[in-house]
Amino acid sequence: MNKETKNIKKLIVHQSLDLDCGRTIKNFPLAYETYGTLNKGKTNAILVFHALSGDQFVTNINPITKREGWWTTAVGSGKAIDTDKFFVICVNILGGCMGSFGPKEINPETGELFGTTFPVITIKDMVRAQIYLLEHLSIDKLLAITGGSMGGMQVLQFASSYPDKTYSAIPIACSASHSAQNIAFNELGRQAIMADPNWNKGNYFKTNLSPDKGLAVARMAAHITYLSDKGLQEKFGRKLQVKGNLKFSFDADFQIESYLRHQGSVFVDRFDANSYLYITRAMDYFDLTKQFDGNLANAFKKTKAKFCVISFSSDWLYPTRENKEIVIALNACGANVGFVEINSDKGHDSFLLDVPEFLKTLSEFLNSIYNEINNEKGI
Amino acid sequence: MNKETKNIKKLIVHQSLDLDCGRTIKNFPLAYETYGTLNKGKTNAILVFHALSGDQFVTNINPITKREGWWTTAVGSGKAIDTDKFFVICVNILGGCMGSFGPKEINPETGELFGTTFPVITIKDMVRAQIYLLEHLSIDKLLAITGGSMGGMQVLQFASSYPDKTYSAIPIACSASHSAQNIAFNELGRQAIMADPNWNKGNYFKTNLSPDKGLAVARMAAHITYLSDKGLQEKFGRKLQVKGNLKFSFDADFQIESYLRHQGSVFVDRFDANSYLYITRAMDYFDLTKQFDGNLANAFKKTKAKFCVISFSSDWLYPTRENKEIVIALNACGANVGFVEINSDKGHDSFLLDVPEFLKTLSEFLNSIYNEINNEKGI
Repeated sequence: MNKETKNIKKLIVHQSLDLDCGRTIKNFPLAYETYGTLNKGKTNAILVFHALSGDQFVTNINPITKREGWWTTAVGSGKAIDTDKFFVICVNILGGCMGSFGPKEINPETGELFGTTFPVITIKDMVRAQIYLLEHLSIDKLLAITGGSMGGMQVLQFASSYPDKTYSAIPIACSASHSAQNIAFNELGRQAIMADPNWNKGNYFKTNLSPDKGLAVARMAAHITYLSDKGLQEKFGRKLQVKGNLKFSFDADFQIESYLRHQGSVFVDRFDANSYLYITRAMDYFDLTKQFDGNLANAFKKTKAKFCVISFSSDWLYPTRENKEIVIALNACGANVGFVEINSDKGHDSFLLDVPEFLKTLSEFLNSIYNEINNEKGI
Repeated sequence: MNKETKNIKKLIVHQSLDLDCGRTIKNFPLAYETYGTLNKGKTNAILVFHALSGDQFVTNINPITKREGWWTTAVGSGKAIDTDKFFVICVNILGGCMGSFGPKEINPETGELFGTTFPVITIKDMVRAQIYLLEHLSIDKLLAITGGSMGGMQVLQFASSYPDKTYSAIPIACSASHSAQNIAFNELGRQAIMADPNWNKGNYFKTNLSPDKGLAVARMAAHITYLSDKGLQEKFGRKLQVKGNLKFSFDADFQIESYLRHQGSVFVDRFDANSYLYITRAMDYFDLTKQFDGNLANAFKKTKAKFCVISFSSDWLYPTRENKEIVIALNACGANVGFVEINSDKGHDSFLLDVPEFLKTLSEFLNSIYNEINNEKGI
C-alpha cells in the first residue's frame, strides 16, 4: 500500500478473485467509506459506484485531497441521498488510486509498485470485488445501487450479475457499452499519457518524475467531453483573460484556455496516471450486450429490481439515446423501469452538479423504494 | 526557405504587409499552385482557401507528400470545380509549412528557422497576403472564392475586406468566430504539442528531435472532431483488431484505436508542429463579428457577391446553426445568399469527401455564376 492512503479505511479481501483477464488475486485491499447508520433490518443501504476520476469519499471533506467529496450535491444530511435516512457505502474501484488494489499499490511479490504489471481489470471485476465488502458488512440486499458515468456501468453490471442483491437500481448518464467516439476519446487520453517520456512505460515511480503533462492533457480532453457546447458557450464564450486585449502569443488569451489548463493541473495532484490508463481501459472493454451474446435484455432477465434510468439532455458523451437502449432492454425483459431525461445545459457533468430536477428525481425514487421495503417488511 | 519546399512554385512578395499583431513583414514567400487555364477575359478564376492541415496542392499528386491533393473529390477535370473550365488558385497560408512564410522558414535576419519567433498571424493577415498573388496574376475579380473549415473563414474575411474582388463566395462548414468548445479543442492540441519535451519551446530544429508524439496527440484530438458520432459508430463501432479477442493490455484492441494512432503518425511526417500552433491560434482569434463591433451584418454590407453557404447535418465542429448565423447576417444586409444544409453522416470532414449532393450544389452554383458573368460580359 502506498503512503498517502495508509490510514484510510480498508477491507483486506483474503478470498481469491478470478479476474476476467485470467489472473487471480487475493489478499487485496478495498478502500471504502460509509455515511449514515445501517438500520437494524439492514434495509437502508445504498451502494454508490464512483466514476473514472472519483473515489470512495462521496461527501464531506476528502481527507486526502482536502476538497469536498465528489457527490456532495447529492449525498449528505437532508440531501437527495439522505445520510440521516440511508446508509451509504462507496468503494474505491479496483484499479483506482485511493487505497484499493490498483497500479499505485505495492506488489507484495516484488516489493515494488505494480505500475503496468498490474492486471487489466474490467467493470465486472470491479463489481465482483465489492461483493466482498457487502459480505463483510453482512448486507444481503441493498436498498439501491446508483452511480453516474462509469458508476452507472457498474450499476448495470451489478444488477445483471447479482439480481437478488438490490431492491432498486439507478444507472445515471451511462451506456451498456462504449461507442467508438467514447473509445476514441479515452484512447486519446491514454496516448497523451504514454507520449509523456516521464511515463517511462508505467515505471515512473522509479524515477521520481511523473507524467504530469501527459495526464493533464488527458484530463483536458476528457473535461471537454463532460461539458456541453452550449454550457461552454454560456459560461466562457470568447471571454478574454485580459479584457479587450489579445496577447498575440501562446499564453492563455481566452478564459476557456485558463480553465482547461487549471483542470489539467489540479488533476495531476490527486490522480495516478497508470490508474487513468487502467480505468479508461475497463470502461472501453465494458460491453454488457456482448456478455449476453448480443441481447441486452437477457442481461436483466433475472432481476426483480426496480430501475430508474436517468439521462441528461445535453450529455453528448452518454447521450439520451444510449441510456434509452438500457430502458428498451429492461422493458423487453419485463423489468420494472422508469426513465427520465433531465433538461440541463451542463452536459455529462450534470450528475455531479446542483441540478434540482435531477436531485428531486433521485430523492423521490429512493424514498418510494424505502417506503415500499418498510411496508413490505411491516416495519 | 527550407529544403523540402525549395523547388515548389512561389511568389516572393516584396511589398510590406502590416500584420494584425503589429509587426510588418516584407520580401516573404507565398507558395501557390494553379490548375486549369485563365481565360482571356480573366473571368474564370476561383480562389480556393485551404483548411488547418491543408496546403496549396488541392488536386493531383502533392509533389512533397506524394499523396493525392486534399480536395481531389471536388477539384479536377470534369469535377465540381472543373479545371477544364475554371482556373483554380490555391495559396499556402501564412503560418503554413508548405513553402509560404511560416515558422519553418528561415528568418533572413538571423539565418535560423523562425520557430516561435514567428509572428502570431490572423485569418485577416492570411487573406491580405493572398491579394498580392492576385495582383501578380493580374486578376481583378474572381469568379468565386471558396473553402471549408478555416478555408471558409478566409472566404468570409475576403468577402468582407475585398467586396469588389469576387463575383461569388462559397463558405463551407465554417463559422464567423470559434465557439468556446472549438477554442477548447484547439487549446488541447496546443497543450499536447507544448507538453512534448522535444518541442523545446519551439526550437526543435536546433536539436534534431521533433515533438512528434505531442503533434500526433493533437492530430488525434482534432480528428475525432472531424468525424461524427454516428459515422464513427457505423465505420468502427466496437470492431476489434483481432476478431473476438481482447488483449488485456494497452495495445490497440479496437479498430478505432489503430485508426487514430495511424492518423497521428502519418500527420507528423507532413506537418510542422509550430505551424499547428500558429494556425490554430489564427482560427481561435478569428472573430468577424467583433471586427464589426458585434454586428456581423456590417461585415458584408459593401459586397455585391452572391453567396452560397453550405453546412453538413452531422458536423458538430461547425454545426449548421453557426453557418446559419452567417446566412442571417447576409440576409440582414440585403446580400444575395443561398443556403444548403447537406445531409451526411460523415461529420465536418464531409466537405473533403465524396458527398454527391454537396458536390452537385458546388458545381451548379459555380456554373450559374460562370454563365451569368459570361452573359453579362456578352462572351
